[in-house]
Amino acid sequence: MKIEVLKENLKSGLIISERIVGKNISLPILHNVLITTENNFLSLISTDLEVTIKLWMLVKIINKGSVVVPAKFLSSFITSLPNEKITMEQRDQSLYIECGNVKTKIQGHNLEDFPIIPEFKNTETLEVDSQALYGAISQVVDIASQNQGRPEISGVYFSFLKNSIKVVATDSFRLAEKNIHLSEPIKKEHSFILPQKSAREIMNILEGRGGAVIIYFSPNQVLFEVLMKEVGHPEVQVTSRLIDGEYPNYQDIIPSKFKTHITVSKDQFLNQIKTASLFSGKVNEVRISLSTEKQDLEISSKSQDVGEHTSLLKAKIEGEAIQISFNYKFLMDALLHMKSSEVILEISKEDGPCLLRPLGDDSYICVVMPIKSLQ
Amino acid sequence: MKIEVLKENLKSGLIISERIVGKNISLPILHNVLITTENNFLSLISTDLEVTIKLWMLVKIINKGSVVVPAKFLSSFITSLPNEKITMEQRDQSLYIECGNVKTKIQGHNLEDFPIIPEFKNTETLEVDSQALYGAISQVVDIASQNQGRPEISGVYFSFLKNSIKVVATDSFRLAEKNIHLSEPIKKEHSFILPQKSAREIMNILEGRGGAVIIYFSPNQVLFEVLMKEVGHPEVQVTSRLIDGEYPNYQDIIPSKFKTHITVSKDQFLNQIKTASLFSGKVNEVRISLSTEKQDLEISSKSQDVGEHTSLLKAKIEGEAIQISFNYKFLMDALLHMKSSEVILEISKEDGPCLLRPLGDDSYICVVMPIKSLQ
Repeated sequence: MKIEVLKENLKSGLIISERIVGKNISLPILHNVLITTENNFLSLISTDLEVTIKLWMLVKIINKGSVVVPAKFLSSFITSLPNEKITMEQRDQSLYIECGNVKTKIQGHNLEDFPIIPEFKNTETLEVDSQALYGAISQVVDIASQNQGRPEISGVYFSFLKNSIKVVATDSFRLAEKNIHLSEPIKKEHSFILPQKSAREIMNILEGRGGAVIIYFSPNQVLFEVLMKEVGHPEVQVTSRLIDGEYPNYQDIIPSKFKTHITVSKDQFLNQIKTASLFSGKVNEVRISLSTEKQDLEISSKSQDVGEHTSLLKAKIEGEAIQISFNYKFLMDALLHMKSSEVILEISKEDGPCLLRPLGDDSYICVVMPIKSLQ
Repeated sequence: MKIEVLKENLKSGLIISERIVGKNISLPILHNVLITTENNFLSLISTDLEVTIKLWMLVKIINKGSVVVPAKFLSSFITSLPNEKITMEQRDQSLYIECGNVKTKIQGHNLEDFPIIPEFKNTETLEVDSQALYGAISQVVDIASQNQGRPEISGVYFSFLKNSIKVVATDSFRLAEKNIHLSEPIKKEHSFILPQKSAREIMNILEGRGGAVIIYFSPNQVLFEVLMKEVGHPEVQVTSRLIDGEYPNYQDIIPSKFKTHITVSKDQFLNQIKTASLFSGKVNEVRISLSTEKQDLEISSKSQDVGEHTSLLKAKIEGEAIQISFNYKFLMDALLHMKSSEVILEISKEDGPCLLRPLGDDSYICVVMPIKSLQ
């Protein structure tokens, strides 16, 4: 293999490749990136066996070939080079690099040690707006359970219905659901549970990108593909294994009848909860008491070691006055994912699930369970 | 005690106070700040017994008094409040705070548990430009030894001579010296070794500040004082204990005769060393070979596991062609502290100390010992 490539192009690719590389101690070959010539392109493949990222860039190909070299090391080295043309040549297992006055040899590995990336036999595909998908994943991904004892809720659930995609995550204490409306109906319904880490990688790649993402469905894995602008060739493909198991029937726990509706400024609510959290003690309890007469929320917290705290917040309150306690982290996480200036909090009962949603946007909801008050 | 203060003023003070607070597990009282009314001022005192910071702010005093409360906690809490007037009242050991719709009680501690800060009996003082002092400390402080086995070189050495202050640090492998020229001669010569941590605290307080610093000398401690603009009252005082012992006679190791003089672009030299460092192996060796004919430096490095690397850099070379190896970290640290676009490297012999200095600035020098090459 011998090729010429611009430093900036190679650097951008390696920054994506290296993200999933390098934490596997028992399989050090996974610390590497497989670099291969393909027609007029150079492809970079990295994998942690759960997620595989393949990406392409246009380069000048002098000779064909492949080489396997340490991904993070190559990325650091290329980043340190001046912004010039780079010549890369593979001889035996090593990669020889020349750039300006620099001459370097990087020790590589046997090509055959690199895992074989299974070809993706696609049956069906679907095109989705990349920013809509990015937004949906970013609004739910943090909420997925960290508990590996229930793998089915450790991922992000995608449900492809007739006119929409529902993107859902829960950790059994709270749940977030984002609805992506589709302009054209889907031919066949699908659903899958994507590992949280894969969801984050896809988010990372879609951030700030325009255009469409093509989703390739398959029984045990899924592929997300982004195309190069004006070339029609794939630019990045993220393949991920799917999580086995059935996603809980989460629709049942979303409450539909409420005793109390509250409309409140999101930023003020968030700031006051943050302040109250300092006094919330070990159970993270922040208490909300409503006054329907005065139309305000009292937010309070108390800790024997630290002290006690109350603050008042004007709100529009309809229905019953109520007192309810939350883990402040769950409230903050929900509010941080809402983009509206006002939010609606709907309470069914002191010990039942509450619904939070941005005012004027029906596509996103959070369900949060209250906690039993210690106060 | 009852006072009124603007949130921003209190916050700025607490950010300084809390920096030295909170790492002492055996003396938890040191996690606190002592807040006291003094005439029209509120003073905040925090200490780790090595460094003490006392600062003042103008407030409206309703009642006199003192309170001892957790510094980091108070700082987080005040930061979270809206930008408004804060009322603070001490009752028993607790601090009651009101700000807008917020009412809070913070648990405090017994005043008598807080260490007594010894009064500073000053004999002599000296005024120095605060930015000159800031610059000098920042150019040497990182180089002080981390080895507590030789406490005398674990600090920054200040030597007050007739017309200048020399600020020096060394870890026995390298040394940096900055000279602050004084327009008025000093009456009496002084010197002391300031702990590295105290030097960093003073740097932190002087950053971006104009005006003068007043240094108060005393046998076992030193005080640095900054005044409030247009008020003439102290704004911040940093008192530090001094390190016992005699600073090595470092002037002897600064070479004065050289075989080779090199003048080179600082940024290019720095970048090429950084790239070469990736291949420098366990001893951090980067080798420099000079060609007087071609007037260039060859920078090379080699590691069995990783590969090998060379790059060329144009330079002005006078004297003998030579090959010499350095720990790349020492070279980089020296270059990073120089502000000129070109630097001078002067070599006495392959295994003798080298001198680095910024072109056109005689007030700063670094001495770096080479290492024995493995190549």
